[in-house]
Amino acid sequence: MYRTHTCGEIRASHAGQTVTLAGWVNRRRDHGGVAFFDLRDRSGVVQITINPDLPKEILDAVANVRFEWVLQIEGFVQKRPAGNENPNMATGEIEIIAKHITILNPAKTLPFMVSSDADLPDENMRLKYRYLDLRRERLTNNMVLRHKVVKFMRDYLDKQGFIEIETPIMFKATPEGARDYLVPSRLFPGQFYALPQSPQQLKQLLMVSGMDKYFQIARCFRDEDLRGDRQPEFTQLDLEMSFVHRDDVLDLVEGLFTEMIPAVAPHKKLYSSPWPKFSYKEVLERFGSDKPDLRFGMELVDVTDILAKSEFKVFQSALEAGGAIKCIVAPKSAEMSRKELDALTEVAKSFGAKGMPYLAVTAEGAKGSAAKFFKEEELTALKEKSGAGVGDLIVFASDARAIVNKTLGGLRLWFRDKLDLADKTMMAFAWVVDFPFFAFNEETQAWESEHHPFTMPKMADLPKFDSNPAEVYSEAYDMVCNGYETASGSIRIHRRDIQMKMFQMLGLSEEDIQAKFGHMLEAFEYGAPPHGGMAPGIDRLVMLLADEPNIREVIAFPKNQNGRDVMADAPSGVEPKQLKELKIKFE
Amino acid sequence: MYRTHTCGEIRASHAGQTVTLAGWVNRRRDHGGVAFFDLRDRSGVVQITINPDLPKEILDAVANVRFEWVLQIEGFVQKRPAGNENPNMATGEIEIIAKHITILNPAKTLPFMVSSDADLPDENMRLKYRYLDLRRERLTNNMVLRHKVVKFMRDYLDKQGFIEIETPIMFKATPEGARDYLVPSRLFPGQFYALPQSPQQLKQLLMVSGMDKYFQIARCFRDEDLRGDRQPEFTQLDLEMSFVHRDDVLDLVEGLFTEMIPAVAPHKKLYSSPWPKFSYKEVLERFGSDKPDLRFGMELVDVTDILAKSEFKVFQSALEAGGAIKCIVAPKSAEMSRKELDALTEVAKSFGAKGMPYLAVTAEGAKGSAAKFFKEEELTALKEKSGAGVGDLIVFASDARAIVNKTLGGLRLWFRDKLDLADKTMMAFAWVVDFPFFAFNEETQAWESEHHPFTMPKMADLPKFDSNPAEVYSEAYDMVCNGYETASGSIRIHRRDIQMKMFQMLGLSEEDIQAKFGHMLEAFEYGAPPHGGMAPGIDRLVMLLADEPNIREVIAFPKNQNGRDVMADAPSGVEPKQLKELKIKFE
Repeated sequence: MYRTHTCGEIRASHAGQTVTLAGWVNRRRDHGGVAFFDLRDRSGVVQITINPDLPKEILDAVANVRFEWVLQIEGFVQKRPAGNENPNMATGEIEIIAKHITILNPAKTLPFMVSSDADLPDENMRLKYRYLDLRRERLTNNMVLRHKVVKFMRDYLDKQGFIEIETPIMFKATPEGARDYLVPSRLFPGQFYALPQSPQQLKQLLMVSGMDKYFQIARCFRDEDLRGDRQPEFTQLDLEMSFVHRDDVLDLVEGLFTEMIPAVAPHKKLYSSPWPKFSYKEVLERFGSDKPDLRFGMELVDVTDILAKSEFKVFQSALEAGGAIKCIVAPKSAEMSRKELDALTEVAKSFGAKGMPYLAVTAEGAKGSAAKFFKEEELTALKEKSGAGVGDLIVFASDARAIVNKTLGGLRLWFRDKLDLADKTMMAFAWVVDFPFFAFNEETQAWESEHHPFTMPKMADLPKFDSNPAEVYSEAYDMVCNGYETASGSIRIHRRDIQMKMFQMLGLSEEDIQAKFGHMLEAFEYGAPPHGGMAPGIDRLVMLLADEPNIREVIAFPKNQNGRDVMADAPSGVEPKQLKELKIKFE
Repeated sequence: MYRTHTCGEIRASHAGQTVTLAGWVNRRRDHGGVAFFDLRDRSGVVQITINPDLPKEILDAVANVRFEWVLQIEGFVQKRPAGNENPNMATGEIEIIAKHITILNPAKTLPFMVSSDADLPDENMRLKYRYLDLRRERLTNNMVLRHKVVKFMRDYLDKQGFIEIETPIMFKATPEGARDYLVPSRLFPGQFYALPQSPQQLKQLLMVSGMDKYFQIARCFRDEDLRGDRQPEFTQLDLEMSFVHRDDVLDLVEGLFTEMIPAVAPHKKLYSSPWPKFSYKEVLERFGSDKPDLRFGMELVDVTDILAKSEFKVFQSALEAGGAIKCIVAPKSAEMSRKELDALTEVAKSFGAKGMPYLAVTAEGAKGSAAKFFKEEELTALKEKSGAGVGDLIVFASDARAIVNKTLGGLRLWFRDKLDLADKTMMAFAWVVDFPFFAFNEETQAWESEHHPFTMPKMADLPKFDSNPAEVYSEAYDMVCNGYETASGSIRIHRRDIQMKMFQMLGLSEEDIQAKFGHMLEAFEYGAPPHGGMAPGIDRLVMLLADEPNIREVIAFPKNQNGRDVMADAPSGVEPKQLKELKIKFE
């Protein structure tokens, strides 16, 4: 046996026992002829004391032991002398007096330290040596947290009568939004499997098959241009239920998350229970975003009516063009410097605004770029409606309503970060519902599905499909948390006629429809039940729970921001023989 | 709400309640103006009674209802009249007297019946309409069983301190046996990701990272020529542990399976506990197979010594060439017809034998092709050693020992099937250990690894690496059950020097080693712990537990025997634009 205990589990109650441990040298100190090793395994760290009275061959063997060597140690558990306890270590009441030491594997000097997060190296260096970086306590804990999250989900859904069903990774190329990753077939040259962007079609077919309540921790693949926090492959809790209305699905998922958060991340607080439910229109108007961060106020205030007769040209021209005027109030920001305000104006412009009028509310009255254009009664009404007080900064946007909302929504988040307004222990979940069914693509001048083409429209809006697509609403819903979209779902189409109409609206030819979705349309003719589901993303959820800045920190072996695995060097060239077997050439 | 209950849960205790159910029409009978629907969902079937006193619009609506229509039914639970109960249905004590019926979706006539397994259509037809085929009670139950198996594994391993970690599906092309499926990179044209044949390297790197006890229900991919019961993608319980010796791993897995079988498949019996453990040499000698079926006897008997002086030329020449003579005894088979014996001889030849001498033990003495060559004392010794009695058939093989074992091992299974010797309720698990480390490939005249190149040799055999590779044994082990290999694993190499030597023995160039395995070799230098693991296959295990003849019956959406998904039609052609983006042309 390599060990009788793990390093992190030894307590004062073990005092007097002889134990065998195995692990890595986390630190080494030498002090007055005595060597102290902190021995580490996944469970924690324990102090090993190597006294000079040990046999010479042992002392000689350990003389060279450095960071990250792998040792097996047999020793005697002893309470530390009074005053020498370390309250910062779970094992801090005891030490192990070494009797035998076996070097299981030496270690070269690591390319970076893993016993501390100070001086983190460049991310590509961390990823190249991912197997070392994962030794960091923080990353190890992230892996354990991720395991717990997924375990909780599985246990909860199992209890609710769901069954987990694996769906194929090698499936059909069916462009449904993003680009597919393709897998060339050797047996059928020129033909390809595709890696699924999600198991959407398959889970719907499982509902047609009567599986009733399905889930899967599903790997999904999207060949998108990588930017920000995307990975070529990601993981979602994919679930689908039969014989449900929208709120049946929301209640199930809300119940799961509400029980899960305290169980897996007790340091996190839920914003409210039950979760708030907003219409898409409402969140845009109030928060300027379809994924609002509810952990702080600063809601958007519509002041179009108050400023309807403003003498400020910027406002006038916006109103004349049929636009709106709205503002947000940044607390205690009246003293912002000219430089900061200029920078902020650039932020506003990045969201499409032409400028960023503002008012600083001071004890001496309103100041700022637009102050002189405001009449006294406008100022009074403005302060009353927006709640702005002395010391606050009022920031305006006036333009088409969509641009106004987007701009102020963006600035609201800017202030959140600058003023540290969001409680980091809070998980502010909410539902967003009643999305528009179609989105008009200005570029292609065509209607597209706002969600995906399998989402059910509101039945009452069906007659408006042809006459007024902009006024058709959908049975889609999003789960949002802290400014992120954490899940998306919908009640699905289960009738062939509606699905067919949907594909036709999207401009697909009959041929295309048959080739790509023929099996779905046919399935709906053989007794498809009403059904719906959703798919919370696992990576982002764990990232939020672990207080990490990006999803790479919670994925064991992530690709870097260019989509490369820099540890194993993938993608990479392959042998000519392999290409020949696939009958592939490159241009 | 679509339903208050599921169909299968209604019992006599619900009598008097009004319930709402939703499901599929499993059967319809009309009898004296009353219609009876069996309504089905995943939970089971319940009888709906539609009396002629219902409003005309309801009666009209249901007049056309046929098999597999989807209905919602509100009705009154009523105990069936005495004598009308159906003891074969869990809901057989009650019926639902319909009050309202809503047609949720009609159904065209299905291409085949799903309410019965009689007249199963051609498999490709079943796979094309897999979403309908899964409605069969048998297939639905297989999916539920699979869910339970995997759930049990996860719960058990979680309790043992394992954490589940997801490893990438898009990884590096590293030919390690079978052919890789490749994924062309759009961002790096000419380069490829590969789908993992197993997470072997990644799980070893997780051990280097200190994850200690890892598992994953892992999808694996092999682009092999499809034959028999193979799928391009399959699923295994992938697990790995640090600081373990061989028996630590075996004990863990044996504990898991021993608790699991009665929990998930109570109709199955375990052959023994603890499981028998055989050396590779021993199973070949006794059962003629490295995956012995222990559910019946008919072990191979070595009769070389008895027949050392045989006058039978066939035996003589085998012995002169240094071979062996062995036999098996087929019970009650002395009366086999000439035709059957000829057929059996062909079976023997398919395993490499040149012929198949046999003796039928009858009340009148030994009969058969070789009978006349046997001396009386040989016959006596033979019967004593083999235990053959009157009515039995003794079948011989004489050749090189490997061919003898293989032939009799194959014939043993032939008799198992013919004579129905194996108890179908039995799960006869066993361990096979002490495999040879190298295998000599006669074709390439080179040594190959018998298991895979990361398997540790027995340390005591290291000195024989160069001088006598055939006598090096490995720390590999197999789990076998009922004649199948159900898992394979090993203690791994964790030292760079041994791994390097292994790659060199396999004839890899320094360049190849660096390009393909550089990251592994480097990892071993930074403090790799001793580790090992194994990977039980999920598909075959569930197949055995479900008494199915092949793994396609326990996979939700399998490929057919040509590796095609005939439901969605994959693989298939893709749009020229996609090939252009990948810069791919076909020869």
